[in-house]
Amino acid sequence: MSAEDILNEIKNHVMKTAPGNAAITDVQFEGPEVVIYAKNPEIFSNTFVRELAKLFRKRIAIRPDPSVLMEPEIAKKKILEIIPDDAEITNCIFDANTGEIIIESKKPGLVIGKEGSTLEELKKEIKWAPKPVRTPPISSETVNAIRATLYRERMDVKEILRRVGKVIHRDVKLREDSWIRMSFLGGAREVGRTCNYLQTPESRILIDCGINVAMDGDRAFPHFDAPEFAVEEIDAVVVTHAHLDHCGFVPGLFRYGYDGPIYCSKPTRDLMTLLQKDYIDIAEKEGKVVPYSSKDIKKCVKHIIPIDYGVTTDVAPAIKLTMHNAGHILGSAIAHCHIGDGLYNIAYTGDIKFEASRLLEPAVCNFPRLETLIIESTYGAYDDVLPDKGETEQNFLKVIAETIKRKGKIIIPVFGIGRAQELMLVLEEGYNQGIFNAPVYLDGMIWEATAIHTAYPEYLSKNMRNRIFHEGDNPFLSEVFKKVRNTNNRRNIIDSDEPCIILTTSGMLSGGPSVEYFKSLAHDERNAIVFVGYQSEGTMGRKIQRGWNEIPVMNRNGKSRAVKVNLSVHTFEGFSGHSDRRQLIKYLRKLKPMPDRILTVHGESSKCIDLASAAYKLFKKETRAPMNLDAVRLK
Amino acid sequence: MSAEDILNEIKNHVMKTAPGNAAITDVQFEGPEVVIYAKNPEIFSNTFVRELAKLFRKRIAIRPDPSVLMEPEIAKKKILEIIPDDAEITNCIFDANTGEIIIESKKPGLVIGKEGSTLEELKKEIKWAPKPVRTPPISSETVNAIRATLYRERMDVKEILRRVGKVIHRDVKLREDSWIRMSFLGGAREVGRTCNYLQTPESRILIDCGINVAMDGDRAFPHFDAPEFAVEEIDAVVVTHAHLDHCGFVPGLFRYGYDGPIYCSKPTRDLMTLLQKDYIDIAEKEGKVVPYSSKDIKKCVKHIIPIDYGVTTDVAPAIKLTMHNAGHILGSAIAHCHIGDGLYNIAYTGDIKFEASRLLEPAVCNFPRLETLIIESTYGAYDDVLPDKGETEQNFLKVIAETIKRKGKIIIPVFGIGRAQELMLVLEEGYNQGIFNAPVYLDGMIWEATAIHTAYPEYLSKNMRNRIFHEGDNPFLSEVFKKVRNTNNRRNIIDSDEPCIILTTSGMLSGGPSVEYFKSLAHDERNAIVFVGYQSEGTMGRKIQRGWNEIPVMNRNGKSRAVKVNLSVHTFEGFSGHSDRRQLIKYLRKLKPMPDRILTVHGESSKCIDLASAAYKLFKKETRAPMNLDAVRLK
Repeated sequence: MSAEDILNEIKNHVMKTAPGNAAITDVQFEGPEVVIYAKNPEIFSNTFVRELAKLFRKRIAIRPDPSVLMEPEIAKKKILEIIPDDAEITNCIFDANTGEIIIESKKPGLVIGKEGSTLEELKKEIKWAPKPVRTPPISSETVNAIRATLYRERMDVKEILRRVGKVIHRDVKLREDSWIRMSFLGGAREVGRTCNYLQTPESRILIDCGINVAMDGDRAFPHFDAPEFAVEEIDAVVVTHAHLDHCGFVPGLFRYGYDGPIYCSKPTRDLMTLLQKDYIDIAEKEGKVVPYSSKDIKKCVKHIIPIDYGVTTDVAPAIKLTMHNAGHILGSAIAHCHIGDGLYNIAYTGDIKFEASRLLEPAVCNFPRLETLIIESTYGAYDDVLPDKGETEQNFLKVIAETIKRKGKIIIPVFGIGRAQELMLVLEEGYNQGIFNAPVYLDGMIWEATAIHTAYPEYLSKNMRNRIFHEGDNPFLSEVFKKVRNTNNRRNIIDSDEPCIILTTSGMLSGGPSVEYFKSLAHDERNAIVFVGYQSEGTMGRKIQRGWNEIPVMNRNGKSRAVKVNLSVHTFEGFSGHSDRRQLIKYLRKLKPMPDRILTVHGESSKCIDLASAAYKLFKKETRAPMNLDAVRLK
Repeated sequence: MSAEDILNEIKNHVMKTAPGNAAITDVQFEGPEVVIYAKNPEIFSNTFVRELAKLFRKRIAIRPDPSVLMEPEIAKKKILEIIPDDAEITNCIFDANTGEIIIESKKPGLVIGKEGSTLEELKKEIKWAPKPVRTPPISSETVNAIRATLYRERMDVKEILRRVGKVIHRDVKLREDSWIRMSFLGGAREVGRTCNYLQTPESRILIDCGINVAMDGDRAFPHFDAPEFAVEEIDAVVVTHAHLDHCGFVPGLFRYGYDGPIYCSKPTRDLMTLLQKDYIDIAEKEGKVVPYSSKDIKKCVKHIIPIDYGVTTDVAPAIKLTMHNAGHILGSAIAHCHIGDGLYNIAYTGDIKFEASRLLEPAVCNFPRLETLIIESTYGAYDDVLPDKGETEQNFLKVIAETIKRKGKIIIPVFGIGRAQELMLVLEEGYNQGIFNAPVYLDGMIWEATAIHTAYPEYLSKNMRNRIFHEGDNPFLSEVFKKVRNTNNRRNIIDSDEPCIILTTSGMLSGGPSVEYFKSLAHDERNAIVFVGYQSEGTMGRKIQRGWNEIPVMNRNGKSRAVKVNLSVHTFEGFSGHSDRRQLIKYLRKLKPMPDRILTVHGESSKCIDLASAAYKLFKKETRAPMNLDAVRLK
């Protein structure tokens, strides 16, 4: 049956079984969902939707017919009329594609009303489905811009969803004896440009599509020269998380003719958009090859179909994707693919932390079924053992306290997404406990990334959610944090005598404000620089870490000069967003069920091989550390 | 530089340096060669050719300009005039593409004349380059038909060669850091449908393209559904030997749009054409899917570029192929690929016998360079030890002698190419030694296959060549062998009381005359059936081997009846054309140089894995038994 035929069958069934007064106007495939449009959508019961989903094995959504939706401007007025002023509504975001309206307010309880009475009243009046949420405490330009784009281009988005829907629901049966394989186009035996290409006789899925920012030329991008790669044959792209080595090339795919869906979590969508923009800005400034433009990023945003953790979604005729928390950064996911009807199951960890951090829950290790696991190996070698997190925090705060005490300033060059927020939580606690008393300045992209964190509290750890929701005590809002607003502001911080902490990008001093701070503050022995992340060979960060007395830097006029290094230099490895060797092995031990095959990727060659070999010895399963351009037959 | 530019450069150089009276008329790429056409080709010295080849690193051929060649009919008359009748000329074969004329005669010495004087005279008269050879003792329809096709379609063949020449010599440099990989599209962890797909960023080569005659549907053919496979992107096809599991699909490639060269030895060309025709005949009769027609076989023949053992040939811009004797069947080869300029070397054994047989020399185990070896594993498991050949022959002849003594007939079902000829040599010796005294009838394709063997004595073992050339004692011509000419003839053999030996196809009694003989001779306990090759599960051969008392057979009218099995049943495993486990390991031990990586293919799963594991333990090199659809990155 064609997608049309299947849709007609569902339509007929819905027409026959739906309550007569629902006034159904249309039934459509939109992305992975079957959407029923009705003039009276509120009439459908949950049971009806559930049974329909079960019968056709598809995700079902019921939405108001666009004709009954009140004009947004008028609806907004109506909302302000009906909801009491005490609710302090700050924003109404209309999602034309779902017929939902997100009502941001400081007191969402007042939007809901007693037993939902206010909401019910509202619904009847405006017909949009109201979703009350707490106003994000820090406004994010990125989130707002993405929402605005999606609203402005809603006709485009709808058309994309319908087209994708037809592709997903085309009638293709995977035979029992069908083959399944994975080609590694990047990120195998290396870190950077991760790109996994899943193939069946009927479907092609790209899982992650990253870049290696430390490389030039072809080596910066995945192996699109692999003979099996054909961008026009890809059914779907899945992005596990927003770091550039996993998502950096995604907008570039659209430039090469891709026109299909991108599946990721909402935080990943927003964070990766922020990073991709930053990436092309920097690449342009540095005169590097820029593989896409801001137009491509926008095109990419329109093609994103966000999915929540734990929701199983058809992404190709015989492939169901489920994303699970990976514990690495906000919105990071393990991608689990269920192929065929009980035929085969693959989980790809992306990057994982199998330990609760301040920010996130530990990575999920239970899957309904699992035959092949593809696991990261960043710290996969035998001696890749990271210091204990608690101890690391204590020692870190000790350095902070001592430096502040001697009136010094502390530069913490940090990667903007993930590690910066984790450190903010450590610093906030230290400040509250009186371990130090000095402001923490946030420079570079950190503020904006933090804003995105506050927009998605449901993706944070239980502990964080409790603090934010129930105790009204959002650590990111602590008075200790100050945003650096411009270069003047930065100059003042540098010039003042006030001891302070400066959390700033880039993390390896390969550019950005961290270099500016270092140039101005390195000479003073009262100051300190604290490294909390990996410093690549050749970067300024690595040189400082190695104890160079003088560091060559470029002045604004393009002349080179040497900066004397008198500040104290510290390194803390225990803040990593990755599991270390012990934790990776622990993850494999706890994994349920134990897969038949374990493939190790995302690590230097020796680390991938070492982890694969250890896994073989421990679990007696087939293990391998594939190379880039290896295609591994899975079934 | 384009192929045109390169050609122009060579042309200019040749024009400048060639002797003035050579009268060069053209310089062209033809297949892998640079061909210089001249009105006086005899003027060029060997040194000139050698230095030209060295300078441009290409194969050089000098040929007479077509305009100076005498008309074949007139030339033939001239030849008969000049050469004395005693030479007994039987055939003159004109090769319009090379300007050569093969003069078959019973006494080639008389064609050559004293110190070559007759040849010299001939050359001046007819301008064709005469190549005197001994008249093949048995005339082969296949060889004659192929030669006739190539002569008739010489314009087409020339055009194909020129097109291929341009593709081979297009200017492509393989970068030092280029990748090289091999996809296994068939014949990995199985026997049948062997198909290896070698890929670099610039080139694609198919090495073997077989079918599994025991399978139906998709499983009979290689995995052309592999995402990296694109028939229009293949630069060249290499065929290691003429068995259907290595060459059976080659003509089918032309049906799917392939239009490039096929590289193999001349015996492989002729034997595979014979087998391919037989295959489509049988498949048609059995109502199976026939993937190509006799037209495609003819097209294939025209695209074959025969190469001799040990001659290095450009088959793609950065790939040089050298074929080496594999010892398996007549013309069988190990394919050695030298990729890039000293970048990487791969040898694929095809099927090998690392032991002198009566027919052939043992497989070559020395290569100038070697990084990856791909080796067959038919008998790769630990306990796959075959009996000693000498002992096997003795026991075999004992069974023959005993059966003849009791006035019985012996059916030897045998595969037509290779094993049949090896057995003929054993029987001929036994007969000469007086071990038995009875005729050996040859039925099915055996006679024709033997004829092809006699057409290529230079591919036989030293011992055989000595007997044929120097002693004028060709064992295939022994009076003991009688050709079965038709069904009447066959009936008479069955009905007569005369004890005899019947060597007949098919080897597993899956059809052909062997079944007819069995049906008529099985009831008589004086008779015997002798199996000398592997009997697949489910075949009639296997049932008889297992000792069934009655075998169900189909009568001519389509009715089933049971044949009583009273004849004695014997099996001899020691005649295999494959190396057994001990010999495979010996091959690896003797291999020079030892490669970095050994991949095992062409065997049941357990045998490939067992051999890979043994090789790892012995040589501590990377070993693997890849699966079909695995793509292994080699460099």
